Amino acid sequence: MTEKTSLSYRDAGVDIAAQDEALARARAAIRASFTPGVVGDVGSFGGLFDLARVGADGQVLVASADGVGTKLEVAKRCGVYDTVGRDLVQHCINDILVQGARPLFFMDYVGTGKLSPAVVSELIGGCAAACSDNGLALLGGETAEMPGLYAEGDFDLVGFIVGSVARERILDGSLVRPGDVLLGLGSDGLHTNGYSLARKILFEREGLNVDDRPAELAGRSVGEALLAPHRSYLEPLWPALEAGRIHALAHITGGGLRDNLPRVLGDQHARIERGSWEVGALFNFLCERGGIDLDEAHQVFNMGVGMVAIVAADDAGALAEEWTARGERTALIGTVGAGAGPVVWS
Amino acid sequence: MTEKTSLSYRDAGVDIAAQDEALARARAAIRASFTPGVVGDVGSFGGLFDLARVGADGQVLVASADGVGTKLEVAKRCGVYDTVGRDLVQHCINDILVQGARPLFFMDYVGTGKLSPAVVSELIGGCAAACSDNGLALLGGETAEMPGLYAEGDFDLVGFIVGSVARERILDGSLVRPGDVLLGLGSDGLHTNGYSLARKILFEREGLNVDDRPAELAGRSVGEALLAPHRSYLEPLWPALEAGRIHALAHITGGGLRDNLPRVLGDQHARIERGSWEVGALFNFLCERGGIDLDEAHQVFNMGVGMVAIVAADDAGALAEEWTARGERTALIGTVGAGAGPVVWS
Repeated sequence: MTEKTSLSYRDAGVDIAAQDEALARARAAIRASFTPGVVGDVGSFGGLFDLARVGADGQVLVASADGVGTKLEVAKRCGVYDTVGRDLVQHCINDILVQGARPLFFMDYVGTGKLSPAVVSELIGGCAAACSDNGLALLGGETAEMPGLYAEGDFDLVGFIVGSVARERILDGSLVRPGDVLLGLGSDGLHTNGYSLARKILFEREGLNVDDRPAELAGRSVGEALLAPHRSYLEPLWPALEAGRIHALAHITGGGLRDNLPRVLGDQHARIERGSWEVGALFNFLCERGGIDLDEAHQVFNMGVGMVAIVAADDAGALAEEWTARGERTALIGTVGAGAGPVVWS
Repeated sequence: MTEKTSLSYRDAGVDIAAQDEALARARAAIRASFTPGVVGDVGSFGGLFDLARVGADGQVLVASADGVGTKLEVAKRCGVYDTVGRDLVQHCINDILVQGARPLFFMDYVGTGKLSPAVVSELIGGCAAACSDNGLALLGGETAEMPGLYAEGDFDLVGFIVGSVARERILDGSLVRPGDVLLGLGSDGLHTNGYSLARKILFEREGLNVDDRPAELAGRSVGEALLAPHRSYLEPLWPALEAGRIHALAHITGGGLRDNLPRVLGDQHARIERGSWEVGALFNFLCERGGIDLDEAHQVFNMGVGMVAIVAADDAGALAEEWTARGERTALIGTVGAGAGPVVWS
C-alpha cells in the first residue's frame, strides 16, 4: 500500500467558508430588498414568493434570463464591482417591461474561479440595491466557485427575473396601428451590449486605458463612460403603461433598433429618422475610432436610444413632456407604417 | 486622418448568426417541453406563463437558481454535452421539491467563449428533454458569447426554476417529530457536487483518463461514472407528498448529509447510522484513492444518498416498499431526535 496525504475540498480550490462570508456580507442588502411577497428569510433551499401578498394573484407570469456580457471585463479592469449587478437587474426589468410586466423578484448567479468574498458581496450587493430601488425582491441566488473553468480573478454574473402582468394588459404588438409614433428614451451609454466590439476598439486598437480621458468623452474617463449603468425605464414608464397609453415597447439591446423594433410591432413596420435624437459622445467616438459602418453600429449598439415606446400620434406630445419631466431624454424618432417588415431608415 | 480598416462585431469574436443557428436546432426540443401554462412561442422577449392554466393559481411560488459546477469539465473531457442539461434541470427540481413544490418552468443560461452551435444545442436540448420528462416547460433562456472571459471551448451552464406549492403544503420542518425516521433514496453517483475534489483525485493524483475502467468501478469507465445524471426524485415522491405522508425532505447537495439535514428538521436533529445504506463503488473508490477523511467525504459528497425523506415511523415500511417498487434504492438510514443540532453519527 502506498502512503498518501489526505486531500480536502479546500485543497481542490473550493472554499465553503468564503462563500458563507460573501453571503453574510450581502445579507443586509438582500433583506432590504424584500417586499411583502417574500415568505421566509435568506438562505432557505428555494425562495418563496406569495403573489397574493402583492396583488399579483391571477396575473400571468413573465420570466427572463440574462447576463451582463463582457461589460464584466471592463468592471474588472476598473476594479469596480458594485455597478454590474445594477446593470443586470435593470436590463432584466426592461426586458419584461416590454411585455407590460412589473417585476416581482430576481435571482442571481455568480460563477468564479477563486472566490473573493469582497468582490462577490459587491456583485450581489449591487443586484440587491437595484432590486430595492425598483421595488422587486432579490429572492435568492447561487455562488459557485469553479477553479479551472474560470481564471482566478474571472467571474460571470447571470440574472433571472420574474414579473407579472394582467392577462388583458400583455403587450404583444396587437395595439400598434399605422400612424403611431416612436418615442425614443435616451440610454446611458452602451447599457449591456456591444462591449466585445467596444473593448476591441478602445483597448486593443486605440491602446487606451480605463483611466484615460480622451477629449471626445467630454471629461469622462473611458472606464466611467463604459461602466455607466443600464438605465431602468420602469418608474418613468409605469404610469403611462398602467393607463393603457403605450401600444408597444422595444428594449434596445443586442441587435439594436434594427433587430428589436420588428419584434414588437405586429403587422406594422418602423420608419426611423436618423439624426432625430442625440446619439451621444461615446457612440460617435466608437464609430469614428473603430471606423464602423453605420448599419453595423445600429445592430451592435443602442446608439443612444435605450427604449422605444410606440404610442398614439395625438398622445405623443403629452407623453414626451411627462417623461422629459421625469428626467428621460425623450425624442420623436420615427413613425409606424402599414405592413410588417424591416426598419426603414431616412 | 489615418486610414483604418473597419471592425465588425464578428471580428470582435461575437457571432450572432451562430447563436441563431444554435437556437434553431434546439427549438423543436424546447417546444416539446411546453405545457398548457406557456403563452406564446420560443423567442419572445420574456417567457409568459399562465398559472391558472395548470391549476397553480393561488399557490405560492418557489424559485431557485443553480449551476452544474465543474461536472462541466468532465463533460468537456468526455465530449458529451447532452447530459449536463439534465443534471441541471433535475438538480433544480429536487431543490424546490424539498419545500413541497411541483416545478412549473425552467430557464437556462449558457455562457461561452466561442459559440459552437452543435455544443450549445446539445446543452439546451438536454435541458429541454429533462423538462419534458419531468413535466415542466423550458420557458426561455439566454446564450452569451463572451470571448476573453471564457476560453474557446469553455462554457458555463446555469439554470433557474420556478415551481409552486399550496400555502398549507409548504414543507418547513414544522411537521417533523422526534421518533420520525429518515429514509434515504439512492443517488446515481456524485450528482452535481464534489467534482473539483473528484477531478483532483482521479485526473491529477491518479492520472486516470475518462476512458479508463479501473476494476473498482465494476465495468464502468471513469467518465461514465462521473457523468451519471443527477437523479430527479419528483415522480417517485410526488404521490406521497401530495398525500401529506412526507414530513420533510432534504436534497443532499454540497455540504452532504451533515449540512443539508439540519436545515429541514425544525427543532429536531438527525441520528444517522453509518453502514445502513449502500455507499456505492464510486464513493468508496474516491475515498480510498484520495485518502479522504470520512467526515470530509460526508460534507463534500452525497455518499450514495441523493434525497432524504423524513416520515412517520409507522409509515416508513410502506413508503420504502412503494419507492423501491418505483425503482428507488430506499434504506432506513436514521431517526429524528428531540432538540435542534448537528447530525449525530453512529
